[in-house]
Amino acid sequence: MNHQESLTSYIAAFVSELYKSGVEDVVVSPGSRSTPMAMVIHEHPELRVHIHVDERSAAFFALGIAKASKRPVAILCTSGTAAANYFPAIAEANISRVPLIVMTADRPHELRDVGAPQAIDQIHLYGNHVKWFVEMAPPENTKEMIRYARTVCARAASTALRAPAGPVHLNFPFREPLIPQLDRDDLFELNERAHGYVKIQSGDVSLTKAQAEEMAESITAYKRGMIVCGPIETDGFAEAVTQLAKKLKLPILADPLSQLRSGKHDGTFIIDTYDTFLKNEAAMQQLKPDLIIRFGAMPVSKSLTIFLKECEDVRQFVVDGGGGWRDPGMISTEMIYCQETNLCHSILPFIEERTDSCFFDQWKDVNQLTRHHLAKINETDALSEGKLFSQLAETLPKGATLFVGNSMPIRDLDTFFHFNEKGIKIMGNRGANGIDGVVSTALGAATRSQPLYLVLGDLTFFHDLNGLIAAKQYDIPIHIILINNNGGGIFSFLPQANHPKNFEKLFGTPLNLEFEHVVKMYGGEYELIKDWRQFADVLTHDCSGLKVTEITTNRDRNLAEHRELWASVSQEISRLLAGEC
Amino acid sequence: MNHQESLTSYIAAFVSELYKSGVEDVVVSPGSRSTPMAMVIHEHPELRVHIHVDERSAAFFALGIAKASKRPVAILCTSGTAAANYFPAIAEANISRVPLIVMTADRPHELRDVGAPQAIDQIHLYGNHVKWFVEMAPPENTKEMIRYARTVCARAASTALRAPAGPVHLNFPFREPLIPQLDRDDLFELNERAHGYVKIQSGDVSLTKAQAEEMAESITAYKRGMIVCGPIETDGFAEAVTQLAKKLKLPILADPLSQLRSGKHDGTFIIDTYDTFLKNEAAMQQLKPDLIIRFGAMPVSKSLTIFLKECEDVRQFVVDGGGGWRDPGMISTEMIYCQETNLCHSILPFIEERTDSCFFDQWKDVNQLTRHHLAKINETDALSEGKLFSQLAETLPKGATLFVGNSMPIRDLDTFFHFNEKGIKIMGNRGANGIDGVVSTALGAATRSQPLYLVLGDLTFFHDLNGLIAAKQYDIPIHIILINNNGGGIFSFLPQANHPKNFEKLFGTPLNLEFEHVVKMYGGEYELIKDWRQFADVLTHDCSGLKVTEITTNRDRNLAEHRELWASVSQEISRLLAGEC
Repeated sequence: MNHQESLTSYIAAFVSELYKSGVEDVVVSPGSRSTPMAMVIHEHPELRVHIHVDERSAAFFALGIAKASKRPVAILCTSGTAAANYFPAIAEANISRVPLIVMTADRPHELRDVGAPQAIDQIHLYGNHVKWFVEMAPPENTKEMIRYARTVCARAASTALRAPAGPVHLNFPFREPLIPQLDRDDLFELNERAHGYVKIQSGDVSLTKAQAEEMAESITAYKRGMIVCGPIETDGFAEAVTQLAKKLKLPILADPLSQLRSGKHDGTFIIDTYDTFLKNEAAMQQLKPDLIIRFGAMPVSKSLTIFLKECEDVRQFVVDGGGGWRDPGMISTEMIYCQETNLCHSILPFIEERTDSCFFDQWKDVNQLTRHHLAKINETDALSEGKLFSQLAETLPKGATLFVGNSMPIRDLDTFFHFNEKGIKIMGNRGANGIDGVVSTALGAATRSQPLYLVLGDLTFFHDLNGLIAAKQYDIPIHIILINNNGGGIFSFLPQANHPKNFEKLFGTPLNLEFEHVVKMYGGEYELIKDWRQFADVLTHDCSGLKVTEITTNRDRNLAEHRELWASVSQEISRLLAGEC
Repeated sequence: MNHQESLTSYIAAFVSELYKSGVEDVVVSPGSRSTPMAMVIHEHPELRVHIHVDERSAAFFALGIAKASKRPVAILCTSGTAAANYFPAIAEANISRVPLIVMTADRPHELRDVGAPQAIDQIHLYGNHVKWFVEMAPPENTKEMIRYARTVCARAASTALRAPAGPVHLNFPFREPLIPQLDRDDLFELNERAHGYVKIQSGDVSLTKAQAEEMAESITAYKRGMIVCGPIETDGFAEAVTQLAKKLKLPILADPLSQLRSGKHDGTFIIDTYDTFLKNEAAMQQLKPDLIIRFGAMPVSKSLTIFLKECEDVRQFVVDGGGGWRDPGMISTEMIYCQETNLCHSILPFIEERTDSCFFDQWKDVNQLTRHHLAKINETDALSEGKLFSQLAETLPKGATLFVGNSMPIRDLDTFFHFNEKGIKIMGNRGANGIDGVVSTALGAATRSQPLYLVLGDLTFFHDLNGLIAAKQYDIPIHIILINNNGGGIFSFLPQANHPKNFEKLFGTPLNLEFEHVVKMYGGEYELIKDWRQFADVLTHDCSGLKVTEITTNRDRNLAEHRELWASVSQEISRLLAGEC
């Protein structure tokens, strides 16, 4: 059999099927062993190919596209450590349930574990951090093997997408010579089933009518119920859960990534300052529910986590359409495996509208008071990390995407970004909460969602500086708001801050970098913010490419500011709850 | 039992033992879960702690220290994707046999797979890319568990170091609160066996007298033997193998990383231009041996690899003290598991000195002619990648370390860096040959070996720009010679170069970056080379910190220059072998 023909037909069949399976983007990192796949993918008339030299950033970039498009994105790299660089993004995709199709080129069997160059053991390279691993058969052009390439491809895309979504890994052994035959007119023509080899349909998990009725009965038996929504992306969920809340008069504690903090859905029942007021002991006591229904991943708020854990004698339903076990506190009493929107819709018919909103009103009062007092952050003239998020909520245009870094930005967002109807999409990498790959994930998202604002700290920015190359090479508009407190700001809030001896060296870790230089290297626009007027001004300008706006803050002052604000709000809450106001 | 006391005593016992087991350096990446280990390590009076925010670069930095010091180096990071960032360096360490002790902090058992923040499955995280994995017991302060911590530590260091050396992974579950008790005078005092809990001695593999005699007999039976030395770091090997060559009058084909190209050992039998002359068909025919003894990893030279494969009917001994299978050509007839220096010494007594050097003389003549003609590269005034290595061989100070990037630099070094007595140590990451982590590996090596010169291409430099932070933060002197051909130069030498359609996009991948900006950000000195005089001049200046010397070249011109030179040398060789000169 002709080697080049086998190579070409097998790969072209796979690539055809990739597009037919819903993949639109492929992120390719250059390399030699991956040559045939890269060249064939590039020939495909519909696939968008993004070239990214650094595989670590490349995989996060793909993660960002997949998050924003809710489609599986394919990534391709050569053999060896190149593939190992994908690991961080794969681990993140696995936990945050983002569909990725990871394609690694490999030496053929006879060149493995024999000292051949650029060869590492790639079998099950990512362990159980992928949903599915396939060691692909070497390319062959028989009817049987073309069917094999196509079915594996269709299965890979469907597996990546099916709940819980996640990464799959296909390892391709390629023998030299590696050049496919591209001057064929029929490269992507499929001899059988031209529309796609096998259409894979995946249903969503629903409760039976009896289960739904039982759950509705359970829920309505309690008078002090509350809903907690962590990070969640299920279609139609915002409308469904707010209907449920309205009917039952339940407060919804909405994490920034629940997509409930901003949008056209009913915001009446959204509670968005619990992270602040649940630091208050009296609030924790008085607001204690007798029922909790939780959706989505764990919320970012530590005070909420503690609150949930203190409700150890309370019935706690955890709903998860992805079949996980999201209960670090070991406090759930019911684990409900059902697609979240379906669940709301299936129990709604069994629930009668409640008129008594007494319990919700208590939450609402505390929430309004807290919002009011947190707004005092805006009175400061100093450059403050907290005020920044309050300003963003005010200034960002409708429909914008706000991507936030881990550590402090997501927490400050949680505190200072309150419900609005602007439909601002909030994104972050909250699967494993790493500071790695954030720039690239945001840039990937920015290829689909515009305008996109990325707010992150200096260590997070530093960790993925290489990611900026994509902005340069593809002119991706992104407005990066860099909060530079010269080090790891979050550690100032942790117990190690009380041990000053080696704190700066081990945890503060100031880098003392002037990022303006690197922004310039990537052809970006750079601006250092001096005051809030300038900040508001810079936000109103459109950006056509890479734009970095830097705000320098001070870690100690930031800590003091947060503590003072929380203390003063807490005082007000105590007064309210004691009936003094 | 007191939590803090358990945490402190257990970790301090481990850290004490770490130092007693020969570890001198620990590279720590900041994080929360790793707090107790980081704080205790930092208290140790003897351990050198290097802080590195980017875990990918951190692990490569540790790899560099371990390579230069030949001691195990420990690395520590927090839980989650941080640990996944270590993977590329671990894969490299595993194949290039470099001892690393990888310590990852993890959530305790009850916080795993339950949606807790920053938690990924870290059990066997690196698969079979580490030699040993231990899920550590949670900290306890019983006599038993202190012994456990100490023995696991001693075993880890010894396992990492024992041939084949490599990485080991210890995963530490830590429960909150994470702060150890550091105000103890007896922190590192060991109650039992204060000198170290268990001294682990590892012997080297040697042949029995009978095996050695048999091998000596086999070898001496052949008249046209040759030795091939790939990358190897075994102590005393250069002296031992040159003695063997001298006694038997065997040519030694010495890879740049064999450490035979520069040093005080006898250079008479060193053949250093085979990559060039083995491209000549006549040379391949006339120089065909009847016996090959190969030491070390596979050499970088592709012409040599082809030559070895063409010698399919020749007895080929492969000697490996690490027990691997370094034979991608499937052509070895004898696999000999024996420490390489030992092997030479054990067969020498059974070998009589030969007087006939006829076969070696043929090699020598071709080698000298090739050297002579390759030197013509120096006649060009243009900035040339080839000439650069010739200039380096001439100009570098005695005892310097030359670290080379993968792809073109190692190949040009192979072609243009010929035997000298300067004792220049040549280093590279030739386990998996990745372009990742090269800057950091070189910087790690530079903490032990000075002066250090790093020569690398622009894609390799770009891939690990973050590594430069170590130079800034620790004032590590390093002279980086950046060959900027704006893209992947090596691809011009591969078959895909004949398919111009998407070549630039998929393989050329120009980044169009002005690296001066980023060098400035890291506080480095930058110089763009205009001519060779300036280059010679810049090499004579000492460097006290980061210094980047950039040479811009052109990929097409470089390809043409190499081809012309190889063609003209090949012509001369043909003439020589035809008896015309």
